[in-house]
Amino acid sequence: MKNVKLSIAMLAATILMVQGVASAEPVPTPKPETFIKWRQSAFTVYGWNTNRIKASLEGTYNKDDVIKGATVIAAVANTGMEKLFPPGTEKGKGWEATEAHADLFKNLKRFAELNANLAKEATELANVAHNGDQAAVKAQFGKMTKTCKTCHDDYKVKD
Amino acid sequence: MKNVKLSIAMLAATILMVQGVASAEPVPTPKPETFIKWRQSAFTVYGWNTNRIKASLEGTYNKDDVIKGATVIAAVANTGMEKLFPPGTEKGKGWEATEAHADLFKNLKRFAELNANLAKEATELANVAHNGDQAAVKAQFGKMTKTCKTCHDDYKVKD
Repeated sequence: MKNVKLSIAMLAATILMVQGVASAEPVPTPKPETFIKWRQSAFTVYGWNTNRIKASLEGTYNKDDVIKGATVIAAVANTGMEKLFPPGTEKGKGWEATEAHADLFKNLKRFAELNANLAKEATELANVAHNGDQAAVKAQFGKMTKTCKTCHDDYKVKD
Repeated sequence: MKNVKLSIAMLAATILMVQGVASAEPVPTPKPETFIKWRQSAFTVYGWNTNRIKASLEGTYNKDDVIKGATVIAAVANTGMEKLFPPGTEKGKGWEATEAHADLFKNLKRFAELNANLAKEATELANVAHNGDQAAVKAQFGKMTKTCKTCHDDYKVKD
């Protein structure tokens, strides 16, 4: 009887081991601090690329730099940034304490719309930059940064 | 005489004020800690999007998520990440202490090539994902993450 129990236990263990080898471990759900770190990194990437476009417009114009910067902003905004604000991430620390306002979590649909506006204007900025007219790029850059400001005014905690 | 001097000084001040209004201030060169923060954020954005593609491949497959993730990685890699490692940023802290190895700064051209490889493989991943064959996506994802590993092995300080 003892041997039978042992054999069953060994069989079960073997099945578990084989399953472990055959299928990869599922990716665990990220922790709240990981979500906060991801979104803070995404916003910093927005900042980096906004800065380089601005530097190009106010210094020596570099068409390629503007296209690349706008493409990054559009790609990140297109991912649907609202997915980085799941329940449980209203407070907490990623790289630093979250600056997301409590209202953002109550109005996630509107936040998603504002983010989609940014994606639209950044995509348009990349298109305008391809045509190479610096004045048009400047005007479109203004439209894009206006979408940033609208969102910051409503959903970013003031320093 | 005193009045003349005063008038000249006021005129000079007025010219400076008008210039200040007419032309925007040039964008200042970012500080070393800003460059380090930008690159750490860019790498974290790589990590976030690699994680979501992996989660899709090992959980419920979501074609749209894979395309969006690969597009972000390609866009960031296409910017030329080597520009975020200027002289003076070999050591220091952004969000945290830099993990860039000293060898990276001595081999910036090779780092740029490795980064261009990542851009190429991520772009190809987005293309493959459009065709929707999950097995092909998995194979291409492996090719892409191999480029990450090569770079980490050579240029990321080991924990």
